[in-house]
Amino acid sequence: MTATTRLRHNHPVVALRLDGATLRALDQTRLPFDEHELALSTAADVAEAIKCLSIRGAPLIGVAAGYGLALELHKDSSDASLESASTLLREARPTAVNLARAVDRVADAARSAPPADRAAVALAEARAIEAEEEAASDAIARHGADLLGDARRIMTHCNTGALAAPGRGTALAVIAELADRGSLEEVLATESRPLLQGARLTVYELGHLNIPHQLVVDSAAAGLIAAHAVDAVILGCDRVAANGDVANKVGTYGLALACGAAGIPFVVAGPTSTVDYDTQTGADIAIEERGPDEVRAVAGHLVTGVDTRCRNPAFDVTPAALVTALVTERGVAKPVSEASLGALRTK
Amino acid sequence: MTATTRLRHNHPVVALRLDGATLRALDQTRLPFDEHELALSTAADVAEAIKCLSIRGAPLIGVAAGYGLALELHKDSSDASLESASTLLREARPTAVNLARAVDRVADAARSAPPADRAAVALAEARAIEAEEEAASDAIARHGADLLGDARRIMTHCNTGALAAPGRGTALAVIAELADRGSLEEVLATESRPLLQGARLTVYELGHLNIPHQLVVDSAAAGLIAAHAVDAVILGCDRVAANGDVANKVGTYGLALACGAAGIPFVVAGPTSTVDYDTQTGADIAIEERGPDEVRAVAGHLVTGVDTRCRNPAFDVTPAALVTALVTERGVAKPVSEASLGALRTK
Repeated sequence: MTATTRLRHNHPVVALRLDGATLRALDQTRLPFDEHELALSTAADVAEAIKCLSIRGAPLIGVAAGYGLALELHKDSSDASLESASTLLREARPTAVNLARAVDRVADAARSAPPADRAAVALAEARAIEAEEEAASDAIARHGADLLGDARRIMTHCNTGALAAPGRGTALAVIAELADRGSLEEVLATESRPLLQGARLTVYELGHLNIPHQLVVDSAAAGLIAAHAVDAVILGCDRVAANGDVANKVGTYGLALACGAAGIPFVVAGPTSTVDYDTQTGADIAIEERGPDEVRAVAGHLVTGVDTRCRNPAFDVTPAALVTALVTERGVAKPVSEASLGALRTK
Repeated sequence: MTATTRLRHNHPVVALRLDGATLRALDQTRLPFDEHELALSTAADVAEAIKCLSIRGAPLIGVAAGYGLALELHKDSSDASLESASTLLREARPTAVNLARAVDRVADAARSAPPADRAAVALAEARAIEAEEEAASDAIARHGADLLGDARRIMTHCNTGALAAPGRGTALAVIAELADRGSLEEVLATESRPLLQGARLTVYELGHLNIPHQLVVDSAAAGLIAAHAVDAVILGCDRVAANGDVANKVGTYGLALACGAAGIPFVVAGPTSTVDYDTQTGADIAIEERGPDEVRAVAGHLVTGVDTRCRNPAFDVTPAALVTALVTERGVAKPVSEASLGALRTK
């Protein structure tokens, strides 16, 4: 052991906060060992923070990108600035639909205003998106806890709390709500290689929430599910296709298979902003393949040959048929299908 | 990156070698960065090396324990020494049946000899076990390559080569044989957390064998199988129950589920010494739960809070119905069942 960090739980988790013309973001690559805030003042700063995963989580990167565009317009509200900043932010990561959607929404609002007003209009739109996502988080927590009321031991994957989405998050918001209601006994959190969002971030958040938890390596999850170590699995989503196929953090599909085999609920939680009705099925979702160094190293320390070739897909696709329910702020789609997602859309 | 190790491939992999009254063992916890040989001269030395995974792999720990008992008898051939050393070695790890079986076989041979001859008798028995396992490795390689002749891209899990079993190993021996036959294009190796036997050892062996390969994190495997990135999965086994249920490195069960869903072969390779006909089903196999520090840290570097609670099962159990075939030195059981394993026993 090279460090002896004990996680302290004496403050709420604040992933993003606007401070004048600066977006302050907790650098999630340094958690849990170092609670360092980045000071971002341009669209390029924000795009870079999203790319390198200092800011992550599908709903959170949408909000951050909205603020990034507003900050850029505060410096230069020209058409050229608006278009180049929008493109930069939109392309920071390819898989989560929230990112492109938030950027488009803030950009559309700004385009409709005269240059002098664009920064203020964009800022108001970004704030509106954040407020909507916060409200969505609370609604997801309620709907999910209603659905999973009986579950005492729950497994989750990657990080889906206040570090991943405005408010209390998505799947972790459901877990927090179950804990508030008094029924939850324990959470099993997967470490979520390559970047260890489970070991670093979910464990950090569960500590803040005072929820009993244990950490497992990703490959232990399926066997523990088969051994009935948990009553349900709940996790987030980066993009949901119109037919209900779910793109989410790599490893999600394997957990879905294990839940199906064990006959326990496999529940996905996310705001409807994550549903991409323009993408027909999971096969149409672009899966980001990240660089090999994330696989070759763990927390900066090499674990294989420096020239070892790697595959590093950031996401996988889980067929809708394996998803017991999709919990959104508008209610629960169960079973998950084009019909049930369509019904949520018009709700 | 803290190191820039490039793996060099200018010598064969020698996991164990007897040098007079010393058993020299490549310390597998330090690979691939440091090719350091441990010098073991007592049963306690060998038991400790097995416990801490300096020596690992079900067939290899059996052979090492056999030599450990012979070394101990070389120092003290009394009944008390024989019994205490046998117990120590037998209990070094609980899951692989080869360990207990090899120790019992060497101990039984020694018990039948007068004290003055015990060391020599034990050494001869340990050498016989090693020679049998080497021959088994070659036969497994042939049978497995015959079975998987069409597979151009193969995934494997954990480490099953010359570092895990005498000779060329088990599943990795099949892969090496396919490469020798000229049909193999690429191997995808899982990193195999917590101890990274894939990233550290399989990549090291594949480099020595000059077989093209890529490394993936464990949780990426299921999605890559679903995307048909490989034609088959082959891996080893730590214990096979009489009904064909397979206990193997944690993560094996998830790969089996993914292969079943994708309709590609999921093949297990191991010597018949790994089949435990006295254990009826996988539910009866003791699953070793190792300490939390393996999860909390990667290669000695903490990745979560130092006091984070963890579950750390070293193995999981894959039902026989998910195993396409079990490749042994006596032939292939396909499908895997009590009947097909029984037929191998009498072959």
